Amino acid sequence: MWTLKDKYAIAGIGYTDFTKNSGRTVRALASEACLAAVNDAGLDLSEIDGFCSFNMGDSAPGIAVATELGIPDVQWAVDLYAGGNAANLIVSNAAAAIEAGMATNVLCFRAMNGRSGFRFGGGEQALTAAGPSQYSAPFGLMTYAQMMAMWCQRYRSKYGLTPEQLGTIATTFRDNATRNPRAMMRTPLSMDDYLASRMIVEPFRMYDICIESDGACAVLVTSAERARDLKQKPVYITSAVYGGGPNQGDDLSDLLRWPDHSHNAFKYLADDLWGAAGIAPKDLDFAQIYDCFTYSVLMALEGLGFCKEGEGGDWVQGGRIARGGEMPLNTNGGLLSEAYIHGFNHVIEAVQQLRGDAGDRQVPGAKIGLTTAGAMTCGGALILRN
Amino acid sequence: MWTLKDKYAIAGIGYTDFTKNSGRTVRALASEACLAAVNDAGLDLSEIDGFCSFNMGDSAPGIAVATELGIPDVQWAVDLYAGGNAANLIVSNAAAAIEAGMATNVLCFRAMNGRSGFRFGGGEQALTAAGPSQYSAPFGLMTYAQMMAMWCQRYRSKYGLTPEQLGTIATTFRDNATRNPRAMMRTPLSMDDYLASRMIVEPFRMYDICIESDGACAVLVTSAERARDLKQKPVYITSAVYGGGPNQGDDLSDLLRWPDHSHNAFKYLADDLWGAAGIAPKDLDFAQIYDCFTYSVLMALEGLGFCKEGEGGDWVQGGRIARGGEMPLNTNGGLLSEAYIHGFNHVIEAVQQLRGDAGDRQVPGAKIGLTTAGAMTCGGALILRN
Repeated sequence: MWTLKDKYAIAGIGYTDFTKNSGRTVRALASEACLAAVNDAGLDLSEIDGFCSFNMGDSAPGIAVATELGIPDVQWAVDLYAGGNAANLIVSNAAAAIEAGMATNVLCFRAMNGRSGFRFGGGEQALTAAGPSQYSAPFGLMTYAQMMAMWCQRYRSKYGLTPEQLGTIATTFRDNATRNPRAMMRTPLSMDDYLASRMIVEPFRMYDICIESDGACAVLVTSAERARDLKQKPVYITSAVYGGGPNQGDDLSDLLRWPDHSHNAFKYLADDLWGAAGIAPKDLDFAQIYDCFTYSVLMALEGLGFCKEGEGGDWVQGGRIARGGEMPLNTNGGLLSEAYIHGFNHVIEAVQQLRGDAGDRQVPGAKIGLTTAGAMTCGGALILRN
Repeated sequence: MWTLKDKYAIAGIGYTDFTKNSGRTVRALASEACLAAVNDAGLDLSEIDGFCSFNMGDSAPGIAVATELGIPDVQWAVDLYAGGNAANLIVSNAAAAIEAGMATNVLCFRAMNGRSGFRFGGGEQALTAAGPSQYSAPFGLMTYAQMMAMWCQRYRSKYGLTPEQLGTIATTFRDNATRNPRAMMRTPLSMDDYLASRMIVEPFRMYDICIESDGACAVLVTSAERARDLKQKPVYITSAVYGGGPNQGDDLSDLLRWPDHSHNAFKYLADDLWGAAGIAPKDLDFAQIYDCFTYSVLMALEGLGFCKEGEGGDWVQGGRIARGGEMPLNTNGGLLSEAYIHGFNHVIEAVQQLRGDAGDRQVPGAKIGLTTAGAMTCGGALILRN
């Protein structure tokens, strides 16, 4: 269980425009976001001595960004070979490294040309993987959407799940995006629009699947003490978890797991997450849930105990997750409507909410929030507070 | 500077045979070494909840090993996208993760089919890299040996360096290997043999360049307190450093750095390394220096202050680094003569020395030792004690 409660903080954030075609290298995007985070915090670049990123797909290593920015001495530059489940882990690992004395001011970032470069929506990974997907790819089971759809199908068979229940997630997040100037998808989306959109892979329609985006996000992690002397209101790292139970898989097989799609990584993380923070889900002012697909939101909500298993579809109804509701979710529009910076954009939004800087989409008086990353067999989460 | 002095320990080690053709998957090798480390420590597999590995080239992710071993709940499985410079970092990161409460018993491992699978000695990386090597690879500058040779050439021009000075390193380590039953190269090597061996890339002869190997090594990191209750004598993590100054590069360019080959990562790490441990180089009983090439040993020795810059070639003469000498180096035979498990086999040897389990190659009464990883623009090191 996280032992560093509120001892480390996010002291600065930075991000590029989110687009379909940046026209720039991933390294340039990463450097822009990192520089912005340093400036936002009011630190001098020469004080940065650590980097933490994750790099499945399209990426730039921390040392390349450090070189581009001319940082004089980097002591802990770590690139995790991981997918979206690591989007929160880079923050907790940075705090742990500082605690161990390996660095003092760490830039955590994710940069990708996720639309114009390597596309997670494609099937290239399945085609080149040496793991179990070599047995399924030849039959056409190749993309994340297809694999996640099978998890959702199983859930639907067992508990029931209507198109409108998934649609509520997509339309609510889109409504949030209309108030977010950096969101890529700001056209209002009605339930009729959602239901009329084309089926990509049963039960996922187009709007159940996140965007592909080019862009970068960065946050500056430092000690709480140092953060209090810097330009911005510190956002403290109150709790952190990562992982999730047995049989987390082997490359893509973590999404295949044929024929068992009953696993939920968050069930293995919930006790530690809430225990370290000393709170329960109801104490949150908002949550930023990793929404690579609408269904992943239900997995996180159920796994982390917002509601019971099988009840997520009902729980998200009736305005509960909307602006002004009991538990506003994905106030930025989420990965479905803001952008897919591999989930790390959720951390940016959480920090803005906790600083009171979220403009038209501000949750009034937000004091404590949750971010999650990943789903299925491996996940991560942070509880952040101001 | 490392804040966790002697708070965490290596409580178990495991390794496979080191061969030229394992005939097995990297995952199988990794699982064998990890299981051996758990058994060596006397832990139950179900107590393992973390993994840390690094994976440039040929690798298996921690979660795949966890799945193969049937470990019920993994909370922190991290694969660093890094080369040999991370061979010590995985140990210090594991300790930091435990301190942060993210895991309690972490298996650190490196597994590779480095000869029968992906070969670092080849030029494939240069051919597919998008970084600066796209400008040099077409002219034939493609392999690590070629790039490191340029660093050594510069050193030789500036300070002078004789073939016999490099040869002392190769022949001394080979002599050590003759007493190591797991070493791949156990045929005695005389200075005449060394000098007569074919030139691969000036000034590197065949015996200046490490082996390519298949195999795996693993160590179990846990709290010092827990380690004291386990089967083996604990080996404490006294100090740890990683990184190294400005302009660490961008993928392969860290080895190119044309036209400047004056950088030495270890110069940026030395003060913290010795400072955290409260010792000086002379206090060590032995050192395991990352010897991807003979010349890398000089870089580490000079960078870390064993001798002054430019004096390494003289310093290694006269039996100083040999068995029974003032500073025995690479008692296992090193990456040059034991095996190249990406540098992680040095950690295994250090633990055996500190447990007094090194058989015919035991440094009498060894109490404290050094391991290093990487060289050039980015390095890492551990001080371990019993």
